[in-house]
Amino acid sequence: MSEQHPVSRFGTVALADMPEDLRTRIGAIAEKSGFVPNVFLALAHRPAELRAFLDYHDALMDRSDGLSKAERELVVVATSGANHCTYCVVAHGAILRVRTKDPEIADRVASNPWAAVLSPRERAIVDLALLIATDSASLTDAELDDARLAGLSEDEIWDVGAITALFAMSNRLAHLTALRPNPEFFLLGRLPR
Amino acid sequence: MSEQHPVSRFGTVALADMPEDLRTRIGAIAEKSGFVPNVFLALAHRPAELRAFLDYHDALMDRSDGLSKAERELVVVATSGANHCTYCVVAHGAILRVRTKDPEIADRVASNPWAAVLSPRERAIVDLALLIATDSASLTDAELDDARLAGLSEDEIWDVGAITALFAMSNRLAHLTALRPNPEFFLLGRLPR
Amino acid sequence: MSEQHPVSRFGTVALADMPEDLRTRIGAIAEKSGFVPNVFLALAHRPAELRAFLDYHDALMDRSDGLSKAERELVVVATSGANHCTYCVVAHGAILRVRTKDPEIADRVASNPWAAVLSPRERAIVDLALLIATDSASLTDAELDDARLAGLSEDEIWDVGAITALFAMSNRLAHLTALRPNPEFFLLGRLPR
Amino acid sequence: MSEQHPVSRFGTVALADMPEDLRTRIGAIAEKSGFVPNVFLALAHRPAELRAFLDYHDALMDRSDGLSKAERELVVVATSGANHCTYCVVAHGAILRVRTKDPEIADRVASNPWAAVLSPRERAIVDLALLIATDSASLTDAELDDARLAGLSEDEIWDVGAITALFAMSNRLAHLTALRPNPEFFLLGRLPR
Amino acid sequence: MSEQHPVSRFGTVALADMPEDLRTRIGAIAEKSGFVPNVFLALAHRPAELRAFLDYHDALMDRSDGLSKAERELVVVATSGANHCTYCVVAHGAILRVRTKDPEIADRVASNPWAAVLSPRERAIVDLALLIATDSASLTDAELDDARLAGLSEDEIWDVGAITALFAMSNRLAHLTALRPNPEFFLLGRLPR
Amino acid sequence: MSEQHPVSRFGTVALADMPEDLRTRIGAIAEKSGFVPNVFLALAHRPAELRAFLDYHDALMDRSDGLSKAERELVVVATSGANHCTYCVVAHGAILRVRTKDPEIADRVASNPWAAVLSPRERAIVDLALLIATDSASLTDAELDDARLAGLSEDEIWDVGAITALFAMSNRLAHLTALRPNPEFFLLGRLPR
Repeated sequence: MSEQHPVSRFGTVALADMPEDLRTRIGAIAEKSGFVPNVFLALAHRPAELRAFLDYHDALMDRSDGLSKAERELVVVATSGANHCTYCVVAHGAILRVRTKDPEIADRVASNPWAAVLSPRERAIVDLALLIATDSASLTDAELDDARLAGLSEDEIWDVGAITALFAMSNRLAHLTALRPNPEFFLLGRLPR
Repeated sequence: MSEQHPVSRFGTVALADMPEDLRTRIGAIAEKSGFVPNVFLALAHRPAELRAFLDYHDALMDRSDGLSKAERELVVVATSGANHCTYCVVAHGAILRVRTKDPEIADRVASNPWAAVLSPRERAIVDLALLIATDSASLTDAELDDARLAGLSEDEIWDVGAITALFAMSNRLAHLTALRPNPEFFLLGRLPR
Repeated sequence: MSEQHPVSRFGTVALADMPEDLRTRIGAIAEKSGFVPNVFLALAHRPAELRAFLDYHDALMDRSDGLSKAERELVVVATSGANHCTYCVVAHGAILRVRTKDPEIADRVASNPWAAVLSPRERAIVDLALLIATDSASLTDAELDDARLAGLSEDEIWDVGAITALFAMSNRLAHLTALRPNPEFFLLGRLPR
Repeated sequence: MSEQHPVSRFGTVALADMPEDLRTRIGAIAEKSGFVPNVFLALAHRPAELRAFLDYHDALMDRSDGLSKAERELVVVATSGANHCTYCVVAHGAILRVRTKDPEIADRVASNPWAAVLSPRERAIVDLALLIATDSASLTDAELDDARLAGLSEDEIWDVGAITALFAMSNRLAHLTALRPNPEFFLLGRLPR
Repeated sequence: MSEQHPVSRFGTVALADMPEDLRTRIGAIAEKSGFVPNVFLALAHRPAELRAFLDYHDALMDRSDGLSKAERELVVVATSGANHCTYCVVAHGAILRVRTKDPEIADRVASNPWAAVLSPRERAIVDLALLIATDSASLTDAELDDARLAGLSEDEIWDVGAITALFAMSNRLAHLTALRPNPEFFLLGRLPR
Repeated sequence: MSEQHPVSRFGTVALADMPEDLRTRIGAIAEKSGFVPNVFLALAHRPAELRAFLDYHDALMDRSDGLSKAERELVVVATSGANHCTYCVVAHGAILRVRTKDPEIADRVASNPWAAVLSPRERAIVDLALLIATDSASLTDAELDDARLAGLSEDEIWDVGAITALFAMSNRLAHLTALRPNPEFFLLGRLPR
């Protein structure tokens, strides 16, 4: 059964055993979600790295300017789908469903980010994200101009690129640890409330 | 919203408008599922092709010898994930959840068929299927011997290969038509009964 | 010597040992060709699958509307070349030579389908087929519009996609079985009559 | 001339214009190097992101346990070479030359990380890093066991994976900004002192 | 019709208009074959390059030590098949048929060099050639040791590598010029004498 | 230390032991450079091949018409970077620095030939070269027309293609021999004179 695999190849640290600042910070997330997302348990044996991870995540994903919250999650789900990252597809797919109130979008985008039917603005965001996720060396001014033509501001383009970059890292950490998604994520946002 | 996209780029044929044999055959499926899977509506404007599609599907997926029903669906979900086919991932992911009573396996296998944690037998099945799905020209006796060593019989190897081949076709038809999964599939098998 | 390899990794069934309907159906093909194409001998140990295979093949390849017979074979040879399928390249290459009365086109298209010199209509057919054969997940409306601009009807586009899909399956079955082409195919259509 | 391209597509922030904590922190680096590495000027218009970037970098690159300082740079240069990231190849290539006192190793590893001649331990480090950099979805226990067999500890394996992940992010930020390396980096560590 | 395409995108030089040394040298080839292979007509507008091409070709393909003549052509057909080079597949396929007296081997190797059934020695030759043709940067001592284990001498390994390298060049020149194979090559060696 | 690896996997021939014509010819190069480039020592055990190699090289690289000397080296560095050939990147990178008097261009182009900032003419040259280096089978008239639009003459296009083809060969010979660059190349052209 799926739920019997270990959470991480490298073991986990229980919330109670984390340094106080992390315990407080992650405790607050857990209170809101109803559970501790496994990524924190898996990264906590390196507290300095986990702190930087949280800071980077919050700086980009909780930003009020630029992309909407749902668009930020769209970038995460699309690039994590292209990178075949199970944890990020399942966990951020859940958040995307919650943010968009659309129970289908996460599966559609994660399984085929290249051709999922999206609005022109969403398609421009995803196309730029996919290029940076999978072949960033070939990015030239031409692709940025395409994004500008679709109406993205310089600030939004940075958001797309930086979120894609952050999850290029996250996806690889999840693959390194064979990170198992919490069971709760699989169902979140699929049922009408 | 996801549910507002058309079912197929090439239009659909309602059950009531299909030739009688197809109406009967697909009606029986619809009765069992509670809905008509969109793939039949999309393929029905070419009745002869749809008949052959159904025959091929049944010959391979309803076979009683060889692979178990769940293992057949595992091949479909793994290769459709590798091929980024949204319809097949969502529809057959639902069937895989129902067959295995495991609400997580379909998302785990579809998002990363290469490294999803599986039993050794399941891993051997999926590894052979992935090679045939993505690079069949390089298949040699060596890879078949690996499958035999993992305990697969000649008949089971044929099943893996033929199901993979059938869904190489199905996946491409779904991409050709931009086939939209029925909303019911997204949730099927996710909730304890 | 090439002709000493087995016809299929999984053995063959002689025409005389096939169920009556298949014996009749394949016997008629053999009478016309002068030999039994090896693909039938290799698939016959699963009669239900072979029947569906023949039905699908005939529904698409013997259709009178849409693409011409030669154009259908062009799709097969181009995609089988891209998929590196020896049996289909050799057998359908022979049929393409016969249909076009051009002794060179099959080798030119099979060895390099991407740049073989073709008429604009043929090039549009082959370009769409290659995309669906090798990267169907990235197919969007834009590529279908290119095909329409080149003059292909909706019905012809479906033909291109469905034939490509059918041979995505056939090519994988040929790779699974390491199917050997009949010696007759290598020479067919190369000599002026 | 190369030096006339802009430092970043998105402009830069001068050291004097940065928030005080960043000015102090980056000022200290500049004092040690003799110049301000361009990456800081390019990331500073998003101070929260730059802080997290610096924290993550220091947590991984200045760690005293596990991999040696030179081995950490080896991971950066190998994966940045595979990712075709000019800034990281040039800047971290310079640091690798300084750390190893070998004027050739950076160019050898960056141009061909797959086959550069290295010690068995270095080769194991680079092979694991390359897999995580370019195809992390296919990472399984088998590859981690190879690294263990070559003598890497769990902690060192984490270092390899996490540094690779961090520079998967860095490389993409450098590509997003078309980041120009400081002229000083090109020559650093090439001359005997 | 295939035979109406131009021989080369960049025009041709007739035998009579070549410098005397080339006219003599290529005239001798034409006398033996019964026709002037198109590659010489296409390269002759750069006589110095054509001379070097002929010298390199003869140094490697007419060498008496090491690989047999048929094995040299096997390397050419396998790598030209992998590179999708129509001219080299057709022209050297003809020579391979003549050298081996096997009317099927060229089509089998060109269409699928990875899995064509060959003797163990031939398979070792082709495997090494394919790696050098398609991904030479990843060549390490391990692959050369595989070739040695299959019985290849140092001299024969050099032959495989150097012939593969020469046709990496030839294939690209043929693609640059869209070189059309002479009609005679298509049929050569297919009929029993 | 890097400089302790062998020059070639297949041994070397000292200048003094080469046939007289090669000794004279390569001696002249050595006199001009101050050292014998390792490629000559590695290829000299096959004198006929080395002569053809030198002739081909000189015919293309010392040609006075068409591309400038610096542009010829740009093609070599860009395609050798894409092919991950350490010897050619280091040796021809040195020559490119000398020819352009730009100490940064070689590292920029070798590490990321796809997006290095170049003049429009240089970009057209490099784009065509990269296509022929990495995927020549897909070259069609459309890409040649792009090069013409950027101002390249037929003669210059041939130069780009033929130099790319020659170094497709050279790169593979360097990979076959694991050719070590001379220490002098690493520093050449990096210091103001």
